[in-house]
Amino acid sequence: MTASVAAAPSTVAPFGSRLAAAFDARGQLCVGIDPHPYLLNAWGLTDDAAGLTDFGLRVVDASVGYAGIVKPQVAFFERHGSAGFLALEQVLSAARAAGLLIIADAKRGDVGTSVEAYGQAWFQPGSPLEADALTVSAFQGVQSLAAPIALAAASGKGLFVLAATSNPESEATQTAIISRGPRAGHTVAAGIVADVVDENQNQRTDGSSPDLGSLGVVLGATVNFTDYGINLDSLAGNGVATPILAPGFGHQGAEFEQLGALYGAASALAIVSVSRSILTAGPHEIAGAIAVQAKAVFQWRG
Amino acid sequence: MTASVAAAPSTVAPFGSRLAAAFDARGQLCVGIDPHPYLLNAWGLTDDAAGLTDFGLRVVDASVGYAGIVKPQVAFFERHGSAGFLALEQVLSAARAAGLLIIADAKRGDVGTSVEAYGQAWFQPGSPLEADALTVSAFQGVQSLAAPIALAAASGKGLFVLAATSNPESEATQTAIISRGPRAGHTVAAGIVADVVDENQNQRTDGSSPDLGSLGVVLGATVNFTDYGINLDSLAGNGVATPILAPGFGHQGAEFEQLGALYGAASALAIVSVSRSILTAGPHEIAGAIAVQAKAVFQWRG
Repeated sequence: MTASVAAAPSTVAPFGSRLAAAFDARGQLCVGIDPHPYLLNAWGLTDDAAGLTDFGLRVVDASVGYAGIVKPQVAFFERHGSAGFLALEQVLSAARAAGLLIIADAKRGDVGTSVEAYGQAWFQPGSPLEADALTVSAFQGVQSLAAPIALAAASGKGLFVLAATSNPESEATQTAIISRGPRAGHTVAAGIVADVVDENQNQRTDGSSPDLGSLGVVLGATVNFTDYGINLDSLAGNGVATPILAPGFGHQGAEFEQLGALYGAASALAIVSVSRSILTAGPHEIAGAIAVQAKAVFQWRG
Repeated sequence: MTASVAAAPSTVAPFGSRLAAAFDARGQLCVGIDPHPYLLNAWGLTDDAAGLTDFGLRVVDASVGYAGIVKPQVAFFERHGSAGFLALEQVLSAARAAGLLIIADAKRGDVGTSVEAYGQAWFQPGSPLEADALTVSAFQGVQSLAAPIALAAASGKGLFVLAATSNPESEATQTAIISRGPRAGHTVAAGIVADVVDENQNQRTDGSSPDLGSLGVVLGATVNFTDYGINLDSLAGNGVATPILAPGFGHQGAEFEQLGALYGAASALAIVSVSRSILTAGPHEIAGAIAVQAKAVFQWRG
């Protein structure tokens, strides 16, 4: 802990640049690491920390060479408490060593020093839970996420803010009409998208940002974006593009050939997240399933 | 793991009944367990898992006899990864053994099997992270929480759904006007309150619920509820009352003598959550600070 170490600037490229490189090298497929109890059983693994570790490491191994991005669903690790988090740390470490980009799907959110602590947990270089990006919830306002956004910018990390998710129970809240503040008249979902797009532009004025921003939004593939008041063109335009984490393909109903139709001008910005329809291939067939789906996503990009 | 054990019904009373008993025995004060790095330092503890454990155990010890409810802020434990969660498990275990009600402040939220897994992590009897209640976010809809709500009901646990929180950045989202579905015309915050109140009434029709429901809402003390379209009378009425987790006292600005004025008919339902203004008393003075504040809350209840 010398002063020179503490003062050293981050040598890691911004998350947006690293994401763009992953897109170029391996395409837009993101492989979910979702150790459901039923999948552990189907894979012949135990529903405990050892099973979680084995499952996660196998998905990492199978992804290498075929996909550039993995997304562990933290809930399935948290289900086993500290032992589950230790398993997750081993999976994160292996994915990092393999050069995969990691989006920790934790949907964290809070305010003040609490949300700052979540940022430190997932972004601080050397933290046992260090990932490349984190999914977050902005129920308490995008501005409540200022501390982790700043830490992400300082350490080459990214955030994906939930905006329009793929489950039907979300609709009432996410289409509610903002009546106060600078986003009045927007839907909640569109207000979040606008805040994130603006934040990416703001980071660019620092002269340090890439063409692809480090802050993204979660926009589910099953959502009608026009109906939600979301202008997808705003994500692609203005110099810095805003990446999209796109769940809803495969098991949830959207098909890869719809990618261009669903996301339009923003379809090249979409991280196509697939979990169940890959993971049900089982431990022996999963690498093949990833290869086939990565190719299918590439074929249908916008 | 015999069939008779697996089939045994929960012998734990509903969370609402246990909360009512805690109110009767010890009043409405809830002591936050928030091991901020600056507090660890002020207490002469290390910023690591050992420091977290020591801090948490001291707060538990100091609460016994003076307060009935504790609320660990999970973010500060997560900051240290699996080692931090192991520390949290030790704190939870000590609080449980001491007969304190535990509200895990984790603000979890997701959909489908993922949110079900969060419920299992925090509610399943015997889980290492077992608590009595959990704070949750309904950005994806109160209905997205159906699985953990059902598990809570089956195992005597409770949930507190974020509705109107105490930070100013929340206002735009939480006052947005719902335009679709059964809550059209309500604000987002009021729609969540109505959903939670209804859910408490639904659980009562099963014949198993107490006068105080097991589902609560988070309503910050610094919020103008009328301005948010929230009818506090709806929480107190209709046979089953809905508990409130009430942050915003102390450091955040609200004072105990405002309790009745702020929460009106619902002020007897409010869990008055205080963290920083207790914890800054330090390890030697904290029990006294808890005693003084518990008495002050009692004096000003509605």
